Amino acid sequence: MAHTPQSNTTQLPRRIVILGGGFAGVYTAKHLLKRCRRLPAEQQYEVHLVSRENYMVFQPMLAEVLSGSVGIADTVSPLRRLAPGAILHVCDIERIDLAGNKVVCLPGVRGRALELEFDHLVIALGNVTDFRGMTGIAEHAMSFKTLGDAITLRNHVLRLLEEAEAEPDAQFRRQMLTFVAAGGGFSGVEAIAELQDFVRRAVRQFRRFTLRDCRFILVHSHGRILPEMNESLATYAQKVLEKRGIEMVLNTRLVSATASEAVLKDGQRIANRTLICTVPSHPNPVVAALDTSLKPVGGMDDRGKLLVDSTCLVNGMRNVWALGDCAMVPLLDRASDSAVRYAPPTAQHAIREADVCAHNIVASITGGASRHFNFPGLGSLAAIGGRRGVAQMMGVRVSGFLAWVLWRAVYWIKMPGFSTKLRVAFSWFLDLFMAPALVQLRLISRAGIRNEHFEAGQIIFEQGDFGDCVYVVVSGQAQVERQEPDGTTTPLAVRGPGEYFGEVAVVHKSPRTATVRCLTPMDLLAIDRRDFGKLIAYLSELRQSVERSVKEREPAAKPES
Amino acid sequence: MAHTPQSNTTQLPRRIVILGGGFAGVYTAKHLLKRCRRLPAEQQYEVHLVSRENYMVFQPMLAEVLSGSVGIADTVSPLRRLAPGAILHVCDIERIDLAGNKVVCLPGVRGRALELEFDHLVIALGNVTDFRGMTGIAEHAMSFKTLGDAITLRNHVLRLLEEAEAEPDAQFRRQMLTFVAAGGGFSGVEAIAELQDFVRRAVRQFRRFTLRDCRFILVHSHGRILPEMNESLATYAQKVLEKRGIEMVLNTRLVSATASEAVLKDGQRIANRTLICTVPSHPNPVVAALDTSLKPVGGMDDRGKLLVDSTCLVNGMRNVWALGDCAMVPLLDRASDSAVRYAPPTAQHAIREADVCAHNIVASITGGASRHFNFPGLGSLAAIGGRRGVAQMMGVRVSGFLAWVLWRAVYWIKMPGFSTKLRVAFSWFLDLFMAPALVQLRLISRAGIRNEHFEAGQIIFEQGDFGDCVYVVVSGQAQVERQEPDGTTTPLAVRGPGEYFGEVAVVHKSPRTATVRCLTPMDLLAIDRRDFGKLIAYLSELRQSVERSVKEREPAAKPES
Repeated sequence: MAHTPQSNTTQLPRRIVILGGGFAGVYTAKHLLKRCRRLPAEQQYEVHLVSRENYMVFQPMLAEVLSGSVGIADTVSPLRRLAPGAILHVCDIERIDLAGNKVVCLPGVRGRALELEFDHLVIALGNVTDFRGMTGIAEHAMSFKTLGDAITLRNHVLRLLEEAEAEPDAQFRRQMLTFVAAGGGFSGVEAIAELQDFVRRAVRQFRRFTLRDCRFILVHSHGRILPEMNESLATYAQKVLEKRGIEMVLNTRLVSATASEAVLKDGQRIANRTLICTVPSHPNPVVAALDTSLKPVGGMDDRGKLLVDSTCLVNGMRNVWALGDCAMVPLLDRASDSAVRYAPPTAQHAIREADVCAHNIVASITGGASRHFNFPGLGSLAAIGGRRGVAQMMGVRVSGFLAWVLWRAVYWIKMPGFSTKLRVAFSWFLDLFMAPALVQLRLISRAGIRNEHFEAGQIIFEQGDFGDCVYVVVSGQAQVERQEPDGTTTPLAVRGPGEYFGEVAVVHKSPRTATVRCLTPMDLLAIDRRDFGKLIAYLSELRQSVERSVKEREPAAKPES
Repeated sequence: MAHTPQSNTTQLPRRIVILGGGFAGVYTAKHLLKRCRRLPAEQQYEVHLVSRENYMVFQPMLAEVLSGSVGIADTVSPLRRLAPGAILHVCDIERIDLAGNKVVCLPGVRGRALELEFDHLVIALGNVTDFRGMTGIAEHAMSFKTLGDAITLRNHVLRLLEEAEAEPDAQFRRQMLTFVAAGGGFSGVEAIAELQDFVRRAVRQFRRFTLRDCRFILVHSHGRILPEMNESLATYAQKVLEKRGIEMVLNTRLVSATASEAVLKDGQRIANRTLICTVPSHPNPVVAALDTSLKPVGGMDDRGKLLVDSTCLVNGMRNVWALGDCAMVPLLDRASDSAVRYAPPTAQHAIREADVCAHNIVASITGGASRHFNFPGLGSLAAIGGRRGVAQMMGVRVSGFLAWVLWRAVYWIKMPGFSTKLRVAFSWFLDLFMAPALVQLRLISRAGIRNEHFEAGQIIFEQGDFGDCVYVVVSGQAQVERQEPDGTTTPLAVRGPGEYFGEVAVVHKSPRTATVRCLTPMDLLAIDRRDFGKLIAYLSELRQSVERSVKEREPAAKPES
């Protein structure tokens, strides 16, 4: 049912398949390729690298894409250049078949799934932002993990600035200019700080609002931000951010969101149009699906993390290895007898784990001695906007401008590739004296079918609004009501699960003929008017049903006047 | 039904609304703002600029985005910086209401349409690539007019290179590595030349194919390319392109396309996966919709172009002006008595028209004398890849490396904004000695509902393929057939308009249980599996119909074995 490039499990060369194109996966490939060169012909192996993207994201720089300090493509390095000897597969992974020693990948131009058989498998898939269990977050919050996320967020903010400039209603403008980040770890702090930096410089090009009209809010579940850092540095960072106008909402967390509101656990509701969520990291679904094979043999914990020994071999397996953010790599703490500690999910640890993992795979092929992972870490660094930073390295703590320079210097040195280094240095240089470019790329089409969440009492659309989509009720109830010329409201109908509404304006290309208000929290499917048009044009069952309902609803929904 | 920022048609200041953010619109805004400063208070006016994007594309540079010589955002200039005094509206235009003196714009975050009333209206909407009348072109050809087009094309090509590297079948790989451009004018020639340049440099990073495995084909309807240029220069350009391996297919044109084939008028079929179409330019639909008001008064011709006098005033109107590619601006040819000639659709003409138009609008406000457009043109320039160009300027013809240097110099000087100039210069410098970065941005989601076209005999999907979408038949007929283990084929059913197929594999998450082959040319709607899942989960009419059909088709469609 699927094509296999070469089926050679029992032949030489052996095939090592690495899943994931982050630091962990790429450095494992690099180290394997280096070691391969020294081996005799009969011990050679092929290194396959499977990645969703053909580049590696340099995550600490994503916030700089947001502010436009560096070019869009300069934060990433093409995998072909990073690991030139590896056989690269740019595709999504459908599933891992541990029993069959193969990985099934989704097809591209050719319609067939690709089956990659392996002698050794390295799982370095990291984790994904996952919003399950929180209502409306998947629908309305933006994640901040990939280059695509950063570009999407930047364009979203640019769009809001443009629309705020044209918006006469001050209250609505304020909502458009409120930016909320949930999660006070490194990525949340850097995202809101760079966003504020960017908006602060961009507002000069607008006339209807100033920085005072903009709100920046950081929501964090504990009493202080930056849990990765020492308390005094975190407190310093917090003070700097507050002084620059970023509001801290601490000791509470995000529980629900709609397109216009963030709802917190303590009951606060923050009206906004930009909600960045950096909190929950879940295992990659492909890894999570291994639970039935791995949990019984002790290779996975309850949170879906892969349990490995200090050689990076997954517990209970003989040819499956794991490292990076998806694995729990134990630290060898020889000095103390305390509980086992694990390597934190940082790039510096992933890079060292990759070295150990590559060594041990080769050792298992050649029969050499295995190595154990042990790395105390070098420290941590964060940029907090306004040319300020906090750093804690090898016992020394630095904060302020010096820490910011250190931040840039360290990341610049770590950045892979000479041309990337050159471009980033030039961008930083230009950025010192140029206003940010406000180019909004409208690449992501909002057409299609999307999920939306509303809280009780919210208005889904108002009579007179433009009819841009049709809604299907997934759960909850809404009231359709007509606004009368005398200012009163006449309830017309209630819509519940499986019913749709909003089709009258779309079919007639007219403004909305009634207002729809949520009676309970609601989940909806919103189908873009063009897509809805195509569907009813050719799917006769749907067309008939829509024609019936438009006929029924029309006279009732239209104002008599 | 819609909100109006300020309703002031009868009050001062007057409002001038400019539609279109290209050279014509932006330079009209600039000239109007400059003239406004000199006027007394009672003759002041507001300049509103309506544009779909918040930046102006520097079109001659789009081909350089393709090859990666310049950064993605460096070819464009933010409108706020180009025309800082204008009131900018970044939105799509729904319609122009000439009788009501207003423009209706589509809404953004706020659900209301925006109504902009005007005292004077300037239409500078250019034209759009339109594929009506050619089957399959809208579905499968890529246009090359906007920044989004250039980025989409670049990422598409990168994806094909990645997939070709993983593809074992040489014939299929060759199809993926065939690139066709239809239209031998400036943009078609520059697109295919830069694409070849890019691929030539990129192939070094791949192992399964070389430049010899790639085909580049330029299709043009006449006997020679570059109709904008002198014959000897065009012949030179053609020779250079052919020498570099670009095949010329002349005296024929594209009539139909599918995802894997370009069909030409002379019957040739070219297997490919990349078809760039730069030929037909149609009026913007918003302009075309004015035909009933403008044709009777002589303000529009049969091709939908706006007819203006040499002051840029639309014939038959007193406050509606038009310029740029959407208008026919007559040239004053005082020397001869021959037929009227019109200004060609180039940036150099648009910029001069803008000056004339702005002057005349102000003259009509202040009662001054009007000016007439007259500009002979400076000449033309094209880059043809491999550091070669052709130029024809003020009577002098240049070709080769010198013309290429001239091309870069002229466009660099014309590029708006100092920081853009600096960035582009730096990119060009880096480009001299760096391999191109192969970063493929997967920003454009293919999810949703898309149209597809197939020719008779083509296979829509094959038994065993991955079930990625459900098809609804718009027109034509297809045969569903089962491939038997003994190599024979059993026809199972025929599907026609209004019927759907492909739902069995999607519902069961299984590979395709049969092959579907077109009996006639077919148009289909392809609904992504995730979207189809959402639709049938909540639209009960559709779900019931799908459940019935899956039940019916399943036993017949599944191989007995």
